[in-house]
Amino acid sequence: MGRTSTARDRLRDSACELLHTRGYAAVGVAEICARADVRKGSFYHFFESKQALTIEVIDTHWQAQRAAWRERLGGPEPAAGRLQRLIMWLVETQREAQQATGRIDGCLLGNLAIELSNQETAVQQRLTAAFDEQAELVHANLTEGAQDGSVAAEYADLATARAVVAQIEGAVLLAKLAGDTRSLDNLWPHVRRLVTVPSRR
Amino acid sequence: MGRTSTARDRLRDSACELLHTRGYAAVGVAEICARADVRKGSFYHFFESKQALTIEVIDTHWQAQRAAWRERLGGPEPAAGRLQRLIMWLVETQREAQQATGRIDGCLLGNLAIELSNQETAVQQRLTAAFDEQAELVHANLTEGAQDGSVAAEYADLATARAVVAQIEGAVLLAKLAGDTRSLDNLWPHVRRLVTVPSRR
Repeated sequence: MGRTSTARDRLRDSACELLHTRGYAAVGVAEICARADVRKGSFYHFFESKQALTIEVIDTHWQAQRAAWRERLGGPEPAAGRLQRLIMWLVETQREAQQATGRIDGCLLGNLAIELSNQETAVQQRLTAAFDEQAELVHANLTEGAQDGSVAAEYADLATARAVVAQIEGAVLLAKLAGDTRSLDNLWPHVRRLVTVPSRR
Repeated sequence: MGRTSTARDRLRDSACELLHTRGYAAVGVAEICARADVRKGSFYHFFESKQALTIEVIDTHWQAQRAAWRERLGGPEPAAGRLQRLIMWLVETQREAQQATGRIDGCLLGNLAIELSNQETAVQQRLTAAFDEQAELVHANLTEGAQDGSVAAEYADLATARAVVAQIEGAVLLAKLAGDTRSLDNLWPHVRRLVTVPSRR
Protein backbone atom coordinates (compact mmCIF):
# COMPACT_ATOMS: atom_id res chain seq x y z
CA MET A 1 0.00 0.00 0.00
CA GLY A 2 1.47 3.33 -1.02
CA ARG A 3 1.85 5.73 1.87
CA THR A 4 0.71 8.87 0.13
CA SER A 5 -2.31 7.44 -1.59
CA THR A 6 -3.90 6.15 1.58
CA ALA A 7 -2.79 8.78 4.10
CA ARG A 8 -6.22 10.38 4.15
CA ASP A 9 -7.98 7.06 4.77
CA ARG A 10 -5.46 6.12 7.44
CA LEU A 11 -6.06 9.42 9.22
CA ARG A 12 -9.82 8.84 9.14
CA ASP A 13 -9.57 5.22 10.30
CA SER A 14 -7.13 6.08 13.08
CA ALA A 15 -9.32 8.94 14.23
CA CYS A 16 -12.38 6.69 14.22
CA GLU A 17 -10.64 4.16 16.45
CA LEU A 18 -9.17 6.73 18.83
CA LEU A 19 -12.37 8.80 19.09
CA HIS A 20 -14.38 5.65 19.75
CA THR A 21 -12.01 4.39 22.43
CA ARG A 22 -11.03 7.58 24.20
CA GLY A 23 -13.25 10.45 23.06
CA TYR A 24 -12.69 13.79 21.37
CA ALA A 25 -10.93 15.98 23.94
CA ALA A 26 -8.55 13.22 25.02
CA VAL A 27 -7.20 12.65 21.51
CA GLY A 28 -5.04 15.18 19.68
CA VAL A 29 -4.02 15.62 16.07
CA ALA A 30 -0.47 14.48 16.87
CA GLU A 31 -1.70 11.15 18.24
CA ILE A 32 -4.01 10.60 15.28
CA CYS A 33 -1.08 11.26 12.92
CA ALA A 34 1.21 8.92 14.85
CA ARG A 35 -1.36 6.13 14.76
CA ALA A 36 -1.95 6.72 11.05
CA ASP A 37 1.78 6.93 10.31
CA VAL A 38 1.25 10.32 8.68
CA ARG A 39 3.50 13.32 9.34
CA LYS A 40 1.73 15.98 11.38
CA GLY A 41 2.61 18.58 8.76
CA SER A 42 0.51 16.64 6.25
CA PHE A 43 -2.60 16.53 8.43
CA TYR A 44 -3.80 19.99 7.46
CA HIS A 45 -3.31 19.15 3.80
CA PHE A 46 -6.19 16.69 4.21
CA PHE A 47 -8.31 18.17 7.00
CA GLU A 48 -8.90 21.71 8.18
CA SER A 49 -9.09 20.69 11.82
CA LYS A 50 -9.74 17.85 14.25
CA GLN A 51 -13.38 18.92 14.12
CA ALA A 52 -13.49 18.53 10.32
CA LEU A 53 -11.92 15.08 10.57
CA THR A 54 -14.44 14.14 13.29
CA ILE A 55 -17.32 15.14 11.03
CA GLU A 56 -15.91 12.91 8.30
CA VAL A 57 -15.56 10.06 10.80
CA ILE A 58 -19.20 10.50 11.81
CA ASP A 59 -20.37 10.60 8.19
CA THR A 60 -18.37 7.52 7.20
CA HIS A 61 -19.46 5.60 10.28
CA TRP A 62 -23.14 6.47 9.95
CA GLN A 63 -23.11 5.74 6.20
CA ALA A 64 -22.01 2.17 6.93
CA GLN A 65 -24.35 1.88 9.92
CA ARG A 66 -27.31 3.24 7.94
CA ALA A 67 -26.84 0.55 5.30
CA ALA A 68 -26.67 -2.12 8.00
CA TRP A 69 -29.79 -0.75 9.74
CA ARG A 70 -31.70 -0.73 6.45
CA GLU A 71 -30.62 -4.27 5.65
CA ARG A 72 -31.74 -5.62 9.05
CA LEU A 73 -35.02 -3.69 8.92
CA GLY A 74 -35.84 -4.88 5.39
CA GLY A 75 -37.39 -8.12 4.25
CA PRO A 76 -40.72 -9.93 4.08
CA GLU A 77 -41.07 -10.88 7.78
CA PRO A 78 -43.39 -9.11 10.22
CA ALA A 79 -41.90 -5.76 11.20
CA ALA A 80 -41.34 -6.63 14.88
CA GLY A 81 -39.16 -9.55 13.79
CA ARG A 82 -37.08 -7.24 11.64
CA LEU A 83 -36.69 -4.79 14.52
CA GLN A 84 -35.57 -7.71 16.68
CA ARG A 85 -32.99 -8.60 14.01
CA LEU A 86 -31.62 -5.05 14.15
CA ILE A 87 -31.39 -5.10 17.94
CA MET A 88 -29.71 -8.52 18.02
CA TRP A 89 -27.19 -7.35 15.42
CA LEU A 90 -26.40 -4.20 17.43
CA VAL A 91 -25.84 -6.33 20.53
CA GLU A 92 -23.66 -8.77 18.57
CA THR A 93 -21.59 -5.83 17.29
CA GLN A 94 -20.80 -4.77 20.86
CA ARG A 95 -19.95 -8.37 21.78
CA GLU A 96 -17.64 -8.88 18.84
CA ALA A 97 -15.89 -5.59 19.50
CA GLN A 98 -15.34 -6.62 23.12
CA GLN A 99 -13.93 -9.97 22.04
CA ALA A 100 -11.61 -8.23 19.60
CA THR A 101 -10.38 -5.44 21.85
CA GLY A 102 -11.14 -6.53 25.43
CA ARG A 103 -13.11 -3.31 25.89
CA ILE A 104 -16.66 -2.13 25.28
CA ASP A 105 -16.31 1.22 23.57
CA GLY A 106 -20.06 1.56 23.19
CA CYS A 107 -21.69 3.61 20.47
CA LEU A 108 -19.38 6.03 18.66
CA LEU A 109 -22.25 8.39 17.84
CA GLY A 110 -23.66 8.25 21.38
CA ASN A 111 -20.23 8.82 22.89
CA LEU A 112 -19.64 11.90 20.74
CA ALA A 113 -23.19 13.15 21.38
CA ILE A 114 -22.63 13.05 25.14
CA GLU A 115 -19.22 14.69 24.92
CA LEU A 116 -19.79 17.35 22.27
CA SER A 117 -23.49 18.34 22.14
CA ASN A 118 -22.88 21.59 23.98
CA GLN A 119 -19.45 22.33 22.57
CA GLU A 120 -19.14 21.70 18.85
CA THR A 121 -22.14 22.90 16.88
CA ALA A 122 -21.09 21.40 13.54
CA VAL A 123 -20.53 18.00 15.14
CA GLN A 124 -23.78 18.27 17.08
CA GLN A 125 -25.71 18.96 13.86
CA ARG A 126 -24.20 15.91 12.16
CA LEU A 127 -25.01 13.67 15.12
CA THR A 128 -28.55 15.05 15.34
CA ALA A 129 -29.07 14.16 11.68
CA ALA A 130 -27.80 10.60 12.27
CA PHE A 131 -30.01 10.03 15.33
CA ASP A 132 -32.99 11.56 13.52
CA GLU A 133 -32.43 9.08 10.70
CA GLN A 134 -32.24 6.20 13.20
CA ALA A 135 -35.56 7.26 14.70
CA GLU A 136 -37.11 7.62 11.23
CA LEU A 137 -35.94 4.15 10.22
CA VAL A 138 -37.48 2.70 13.39
CA HIS A 139 -40.63 4.77 12.92
CA ALA A 140 -41.09 3.40 9.39
CA ASN A 141 -40.64 -0.11 10.80
CA LEU A 142 -43.23 0.52 13.53
CA THR A 143 -45.68 1.89 10.96
CA GLU A 144 -45.28 -1.29 8.93
CA GLY A 145 -45.69 -3.29 12.14
CA ALA A 146 -48.97 -1.53 12.92
CA GLN A 147 -50.18 -2.66 9.50
CA ASP A 148 -49.02 -6.27 9.75
CA GLY A 149 -50.19 -6.52 13.35
CA SER A 150 -46.76 -7.20 14.93
CA VAL A 151 -46.59 -3.74 16.58
CA ALA A 152 -49.28 -2.01 18.65
CA ALA A 153 -50.94 0.59 16.41
CA GLU A 154 -51.07 3.11 19.27
CA TYR A 155 -47.29 2.82 19.72
CA ALA A 156 -46.33 3.24 16.06
CA ASP A 157 -45.28 6.87 16.45
CA LEU A 158 -42.05 8.83 16.17
CA ALA A 159 -41.90 9.34 19.95
CA THR A 160 -41.83 5.56 20.47
CA ALA A 161 -39.18 5.22 17.76
CA ARG A 162 -37.06 7.75 19.67
CA ALA A 163 -37.69 5.77 22.86
CA VAL A 164 -36.34 2.65 21.12
CA VAL A 165 -33.19 4.55 20.12
CA ALA A 166 -32.93 5.89 23.68
CA GLN A 167 -33.24 2.37 25.14
CA ILE A 168 -30.44 1.17 22.84
CA GLU A 169 -28.16 4.07 23.81
CA GLY A 170 -28.91 3.76 27.53
CA ALA A 171 -28.41 -0.02 27.56
CA VAL A 172 -25.11 0.29 25.69
CA LEU A 173 -23.99 2.98 28.16
CA LEU A 174 -24.67 0.65 31.11
CA ALA A 175 -22.95 -2.28 29.35
CA LYS A 176 -19.93 -0.10 28.63
CA LEU A 177 -19.81 1.07 32.25
CA ALA A 178 -20.09 -2.51 33.55
CA GLY A 179 -17.56 -3.78 31.00
CA ASP A 180 -20.05 -6.57 30.39
CA THR A 181 -22.38 -7.19 27.46
CA ARG A 182 -24.55 -9.76 29.26
CA SER A 183 -27.12 -7.13 30.24
CA LEU A 184 -27.69 -6.57 26.53
CA ASP A 185 -29.35 -10.01 26.35
CA ASN A 186 -32.41 -8.19 27.68
CA LEU A 187 -32.36 -5.36 25.18
CA TRP A 188 -34.79 -6.93 22.74
CA PRO A 189 -37.35 -8.00 25.41
CA HIS A 190 -37.29 -4.45 26.76
CA VAL A 191 -37.59 -2.82 23.33
CA ARG A 192 -40.46 -5.22 22.58
CA ARG A 193 -42.34 -3.86 25.60
CA LEU A 194 -42.03 -0.35 24.17
CA VAL A 195 -43.62 -1.33 20.85
CA THR A 196 -46.10 -4.14 21.57
CA VAL A 197 -49.02 -4.78 23.87
CA PRO A 198 -48.58 -8.25 25.37
CA SER A 199 -51.49 -10.64 25.54
CA ARG A 200 -52.97 -10.86 29.00
CA ARG A 201 -52.08 -14.16 30.57
CA MET B 1 -16.61 33.90 53.12
CA GLY B 2 -13.00 33.22 54.10
CA ARG B 3 -10.92 32.17 51.14
CA THR B 4 -8.90 29.44 52.85
CA SER B 5 -11.73 27.81 54.73
CA THR B 6 -13.82 27.17 51.64
CA ALA B 7 -11.14 26.55 49.02
CA ARG B 8 -11.75 22.82 49.07
CA ASP B 9 -15.51 23.24 48.59
CA ARG B 10 -14.95 25.78 45.85
CA LEU B 11 -12.63 23.39 44.00
CA ARG B 12 -15.23 20.63 44.24
CA ASP B 13 -18.11 22.85 43.14
CA SER B 14 -16.12 24.33 40.25
CA ALA B 15 -15.02 20.87 39.13
CA CYS B 16 -18.61 19.63 39.30
CA GLU B 17 -19.81 22.45 37.05
CA LEU B 18 -16.93 22.16 34.57
CA LEU B 19 -17.06 18.35 34.39
CA HIS B 20 -20.81 18.45 33.86
CA THR B 21 -20.60 21.06 31.12
CA ARG B 22 -17.47 20.06 29.25
CA GLY B 23 -16.34 16.62 30.41
CA TYR B 24 -13.19 15.23 32.00
CA ALA B 25 -10.49 15.39 29.35
CA ALA B 26 -11.47 18.90 28.22
CA VAL B 27 -11.03 20.39 31.70
CA GLY B 28 -7.66 20.79 33.40
CA VAL B 29 -6.60 21.45 36.96
CA ALA B 30 -5.56 25.02 36.06
CA GLU B 31 -9.05 25.85 34.81
CA ILE B 32 -10.71 24.31 37.86
CA CYS B 33 -8.42 26.38 40.09
CA ALA B 34 -9.12 29.58 38.14
CA ARG B 35 -12.88 29.04 38.36
CA ALA B 36 -12.59 28.28 42.08
CA ASP B 37 -10.30 31.24 42.68
CA VAL B 38 -7.73 28.92 44.27
CA ARG B 39 -4.03 29.08 43.47
CA LYS B 40 -2.90 26.10 41.43
CA GLY B 41 -0.18 25.39 43.96
CA SER B 42 -2.84 24.81 46.59
CA PHE B 43 -4.77 22.26 44.53
CA TYR B 44 -2.57 19.32 45.49
CA HIS B 45 -2.85 20.28 49.14
CA PHE B 46 -6.53 19.27 48.88
CA PHE B 47 -6.60 16.63 46.14
CA GLU B 48 -4.05 14.13 44.91
CA SER B 49 -5.12 14.49 41.30
CA LYS B 50 -7.92 15.51 38.95
CA GLN B 51 -9.07 11.90 39.20
CA ALA B 52 -9.32 12.09 43.00
CA LEU B 53 -11.30 15.33 42.76
CA THR B 54 -13.59 13.74 40.15
CA ILE B 55 -14.31 10.85 42.49
CA GLU B 56 -15.26 13.30 45.22
CA VAL B 57 -17.50 15.16 42.76
CA ILE B 58 -19.23 11.89 41.88
CA ASP B 59 -19.66 10.92 45.53
CA THR B 60 -21.05 14.34 46.51
CA HIS B 61 -23.36 14.46 43.50
CA TRP B 62 -24.70 10.94 43.96
CA GLN B 63 -25.15 11.42 47.70
CA ALA B 64 -27.52 14.35 47.01
CA GLN B 65 -29.20 12.53 44.12
CA ARG B 66 -29.67 9.36 46.18
CA ALA B 67 -31.52 11.32 48.87
CA ALA B 68 -33.73 12.90 46.20
CA TRP B 69 -34.42 9.51 44.55
CA ARG B 70 -35.36 7.99 47.91
CA GLU B 71 -37.64 10.90 48.74
CA ARG B 72 -39.51 10.66 45.40
CA LEU B 73 -39.76 6.86 45.62
CA GLY B 74 -41.06 6.92 49.20
CA GLY B 75 -44.60 7.48 50.45
CA PRO B 76 -47.95 5.76 50.78
CA GLU B 77 -49.06 5.94 47.10
CA PRO B 78 -49.00 2.98 44.70
CA ALA B 79 -45.42 2.29 43.60
CA ALA B 80 -45.95 3.19 39.92
CA GLY B 81 -47.11 6.66 40.99
CA ARG B 82 -43.95 7.10 43.03
CA LEU B 83 -41.80 6.00 40.09
CA GLN B 84 -43.67 8.52 37.95
CA ARG B 85 -42.87 11.22 40.53
CA LEU B 86 -39.15 10.34 40.29
CA ILE B 87 -39.20 10.49 36.50
CA MET B 88 -41.09 13.80 36.42
CA TRP B 89 -38.61 15.25 38.90
CA LEU B 90 -35.64 14.12 36.81
CA VAL B 91 -37.20 15.72 33.72
CA GLU B 92 -37.91 18.93 35.66
CA THR B 93 -34.28 19.00 36.81
CA GLN B 94 -33.08 19.00 33.19
CA ARG B 95 -35.61 21.71 32.29
CA GLU B 96 -34.63 23.97 35.17
CA ALA B 97 -30.95 23.55 34.38
CA GLN B 98 -31.61 24.51 30.76
CA GLN B 99 -33.56 27.59 31.85
CA ALA B 100 -30.73 28.59 34.17
CA THR B 101 -27.81 27.96 31.82
CA GLY B 102 -29.27 27.89 28.29
CA ARG B 103 -27.72 24.44 27.86
CA ILE B 104 -28.72 20.85 28.57
CA ASP B 105 -25.69 19.29 30.19
CA GLY B 106 -27.51 16.00 30.71
CA CYS B 107 -26.63 13.53 33.44
CA LEU B 108 -23.27 14.13 35.13
CA LEU B 109 -22.91 10.43 36.00
CA GLY B 110 -23.94 9.29 32.51
CA ASN B 111 -21.60 11.78 30.86
CA LEU B 112 -18.65 10.57 32.92
CA ALA B 113 -19.63 6.92 32.38
CA ILE B 114 -19.54 7.37 28.62
CA GLU B 115 -16.26 9.26 28.68
CA LEU B 116 -14.28 7.34 31.29
CA SER B 117 -15.55 3.73 31.55
CA ASN B 118 -12.58 2.39 29.62
CA GLN B 119 -10.00 4.81 30.89
CA GLU B 120 -10.19 5.50 34.60
CA THR B 121 -10.83 2.37 36.66
CA ALA B 122 -11.35 4.15 40.00
CA VAL B 123 -13.90 6.50 38.44
CA GLN B 124 -15.58 3.63 36.61
CA GLN B 125 -15.99 1.71 39.89
CA ARG B 126 -17.60 4.70 41.61
CA LEU B 127 -19.99 5.24 38.71
CA THR B 128 -20.85 1.54 38.59
CA ALA B 129 -21.76 1.67 42.28
CA ALA B 130 -24.00 4.71 41.72
CA PHE B 131 -25.83 3.16 38.76
CA ASP B 132 -26.17 -0.14 40.64
CA GLU B 133 -27.81 1.77 43.49
CA GLN B 134 -30.17 3.50 41.06
CA ALA B 135 -31.22 0.13 39.64
CA GLU B 136 -31.66 -1.29 43.16
CA LEU B 137 -33.85 1.66 44.20
CA VAL B 138 -36.02 1.15 41.11
CA HIS B 139 -36.06 -2.62 41.65
CA ALA B 140 -37.33 -2.15 45.23
CA ASN B 141 -40.02 0.17 43.86
CA LEU B 142 -41.06 -2.38 41.22
CA THR B 143 -41.21 -5.12 43.84
CA GLU B 144 -43.55 -2.96 45.92
CA GLY B 145 -45.54 -2.23 42.77
CA ALA B 146 -45.97 -5.94 42.06
CA GLN B 147 -47.44 -6.24 45.55
CA ASP B 148 -49.79 -3.24 45.34
CA GLY B 149 -50.77 -4.14 41.76
CA SER B 150 -49.46 -0.97 40.09
CA VAL B 151 -46.56 -2.81 38.37
CA ALA B 152 -46.74 -6.03 36.35
CA ALA B 153 -45.46 -8.83 38.60
CA GLU B 154 -43.55 -10.41 35.68
CA TYR B 155 -41.66 -7.13 35.13
CA ALA B 156 -40.66 -6.52 38.75
CA ASP B 157 -37.09 -7.69 38.23
CA LEU B 158 -33.63 -6.13 38.36
CA ALA B 159 -33.26 -6.35 34.57
CA THR B 160 -36.36 -4.19 34.13
CA ALA B 161 -35.06 -1.76 36.75
CA ARG B 162 -31.87 -1.45 34.70
CA ALA B 163 -33.96 -0.89 31.56
CA VAL B 164 -35.71 1.98 33.37
CA VAL B 165 -32.32 3.52 34.21
CA ALA B 166 -31.22 2.94 30.59
CA GLN B 167 -34.38 4.62 29.30
CA ILE B 168 -33.67 7.67 31.47
CA GLU B 169 -30.03 7.89 30.35
CA GLY B 170 -30.84 7.38 26.67
CA ALA B 171 -33.67 9.91 26.69
CA VAL B 172 -31.49 12.50 28.43
CA LEU B 173 -28.73 11.86 25.86
CA LEU B 174 -31.14 12.55 22.98
CA ALA B 175 -32.54 15.67 24.73
CA LYS B 176 -29.01 16.93 25.30
CA LEU B 177 -28.11 16.31 21.65
CA ALA B 178 -31.28 18.07 20.43
CA GLY B 179 -30.81 20.91 22.91
CA ASP B 180 -34.49 20.45 23.67
CA THR B 181 -36.20 18.93 26.69
CA ARG B 182 -39.62 18.56 25.03
CA SER B 183 -38.93 14.93 24.07
CA LEU B 184 -38.64 14.21 27.81
CA ASP B 185 -42.41 14.77 28.11
CA ASN B 186 -42.67 11.20 26.85
CA LEU B 187 -40.22 9.68 29.29
CA TRP B 188 -42.80 8.60 31.85
CA PRO B 189 -45.23 7.07 29.30
CA HIS B 190 -42.31 5.07 27.88
CA VAL B 191 -41.01 3.97 31.28
CA ARG B 192 -44.57 2.97 32.19
CA ARG B 193 -44.63 0.60 29.20
CA LEU B 194 -41.50 -1.09 30.56
CA VAL B 195 -43.09 -1.79 33.95
CA THR B 196 -46.82 -2.26 33.37
CA VAL B 197 -49.09 -4.35 31.18
CA PRO B 198 -51.75 -2.06 29.71
CA SER B 199 -55.38 -3.13 29.71
CA ARG B 200 -56.51 -4.33 26.29
CA ARG B 201 -58.81 -1.77 24.75
